[in-house]
Amino acid sequence: MSVRIAIDVMGGDHGLVVTLAAAARFQEAHPGVTLLLVGDESQIRQELPQHGLREGDLLHVVHAPEVVLMDESPAVALRSKKKSSMRVAIDLVKDGAAQAAVSAGNTGALMATAKFVLKTLPGIDRPAICTALPSMTGHTHVLDLGANVECNAEHLFQFAVMGSVLVEAYDDNPEPKVGLLNVGAEAIKGNDTVKAAAALLEEGPINYIGFVEGDDIYRGVADVVVCDGFVGNVALKTSEGLAKMIAQFLREEFNRTWLSKAAAVCALPVLKRLKNRLDPGRYNGASLLGLQGIVIKSHGGADVQAFISALGVALREIEKDVPRRIDQRLGQLLNEKEMA
Amino acid sequence: MSVRIAIDVMGGDHGLVVTLAAAARFQEAHPGVTLLLVGDESQIRQELPQHGLREGDLLHVVHAPEVVLMDESPAVALRSKKKSSMRVAIDLVKDGAAQAAVSAGNTGALMATAKFVLKTLPGIDRPAICTALPSMTGHTHVLDLGANVECNAEHLFQFAVMGSVLVEAYDDNPEPKVGLLNVGAEAIKGNDTVKAAAALLEEGPINYIGFVEGDDIYRGVADVVVCDGFVGNVALKTSEGLAKMIAQFLREEFNRTWLSKAAAVCALPVLKRLKNRLDPGRYNGASLLGLQGIVIKSHGGADVQAFISALGVALREIEKDVPRRIDQRLGQLLNEKEMA
Repeated sequence: MSVRIAIDVMGGDHGLVVTLAAAARFQEAHPGVTLLLVGDESQIRQELPQHGLREGDLLHVVHAPEVVLMDESPAVALRSKKKSSMRVAIDLVKDGAAQAAVSAGNTGALMATAKFVLKTLPGIDRPAICTALPSMTGHTHVLDLGANVECNAEHLFQFAVMGSVLVEAYDDNPEPKVGLLNVGAEAIKGNDTVKAAAALLEEGPINYIGFVEGDDIYRGVADVVVCDGFVGNVALKTSEGLAKMIAQFLREEFNRTWLSKAAAVCALPVLKRLKNRLDPGRYNGASLLGLQGIVIKSHGGADVQAFISALGVALREIEKDVPRRIDQRLGQLLNEKEMA
Repeated sequence: MSVRIAIDVMGGDHGLVVTLAAAARFQEAHPGVTLLLVGDESQIRQELPQHGLREGDLLHVVHAPEVVLMDESPAVALRSKKKSSMRVAIDLVKDGAAQAAVSAGNTGALMATAKFVLKTLPGIDRPAICTALPSMTGHTHVLDLGANVECNAEHLFQFAVMGSVLVEAYDDNPEPKVGLLNVGAEAIKGNDTVKAAAALLEEGPINYIGFVEGDDIYRGVADVVVCDGFVGNVALKTSEGLAKMIAQFLREEFNRTWLSKAAAVCALPVLKRLKNRLDPGRYNGASLLGLQGIVIKSHGGADVQAFISALGVALREIEKDVPRRIDQRLGQLLNEKEMA
């Protein structure tokens, strides 16, 4: 069977305009991949031609009459929107009709729905959200980014194992370096949870390199940085805020005088390259790890290029069989525990 | 009595080279301020002339034979280094010989020593570390930045009150907007601690504006952002790491070709202005809030200009009588509690 990706085309801040354009361009680049466009079928069919898309063996429209709103509570979405585009896309993964679902919708609802429909892998208490961020040496995968605001040491340990297996598969990295986010590199630093997690990780089956600090995410000293979802979300959002402020200051400074405006023209190619290197869209596509299936969350405000990145993450996780590899590793760990 | 600031001149990564140069330039700008230079007296006296400094009514050398190392444990420093430059500087505040102490030394040791020697204000369980960060609209004070890695709701409430009074005094802002850092702006988001803290703050005496997210620190929607020390430290260090990476990428892109090098020459004045706006040195000088006295922590790697900023924070907190104002506000709160 060919690779099949279900897309919640209604989700996100821009809906069909972005998701259909991205689907069209993704399919040009990956002509063998089947896409299942999930959403309001009449709206989708109306818009298909202007994106050069045609229904056929490689492109299906799957009707879903409801849409989960961006500010809807996960519990309400789960209970009352059983025919939402998000839910139907995940159902397609559950039924084996697709190998991955991609949505730019409400994160909390997506996580709750994915967990309810697909279930977690044996040995995983809670799924985590993981994404790559740029670093001085390449990129760093960080998890959890907000699915779990309260975690114990065992949860952090599970995140570390999942992150390690993801990067192993995703980046063809045989031994990813895994760091635990803390307020200092010394063993005496930190709260009880990270200290207990460190003790588990030192005994664990992965390449644990010890505590890392916030700046190490961007220094690229680790391939995987593990933290609870509260801390990870603050780190991610703080980074977004700082990057926006720097971009804003750059614009202001280049616009200040006619001389600086002239300098901006000279510097434009350089600034474009910089922007491209830092573009959050390049890193769009967060994995909901720990589920019995692949679900990728796109940023709600993603543009076409960014949404294509998210589709690319889904494709790569399918090709690399990420959930099965996590499941195998967890199976080994559970066996070892039973043996011990 | 004139304003008197005790400086731990031995602390920090650079020691006397930076602290004495900063003392000299600070005194030029503020000729009425008395400085007490605390450290190894023979070393200090040897170096004074090359910074154009001379002992006299406005400049005293106070001998302290020991130095707390940057990686020393706070408990060890407190127990075994009773004659360290850091300790003696804080003792001078305790004895009333100085109104503030400034140190670029080991943060944990500085906090432990300050708390032990000066004691906390009535109603404060734990002091917090607070500093200003640049924002799109000016700056935002953030606390705690790492003194308290585990906090309950009452601690966060106390931080909010202290931060509010600090900004009121420091920025002549009659009603600072105080936000509580969380993973989402909606009331249902977050962990139990922030939810409980929010409930306290909604009843409290300050201008509480609700939950804010990581990016809001730089958007400037609040004057004070409150969080526990674990989260605050991660946010601060993550920001430092991202800023360094962006600077590194900028350098790389401008150095890539002869054309981009030429563009760099054009853009140099603009980039310098940008650097100046973002310079962490401008914001150097974190307040240890909640103590019966003023203690300012400089970044360990501070250069002369940055250390001058930290001295400036000390001077302003003395002029604005920050500890007494926090004490008064807390006294009102304690009275109200007793009345209730």
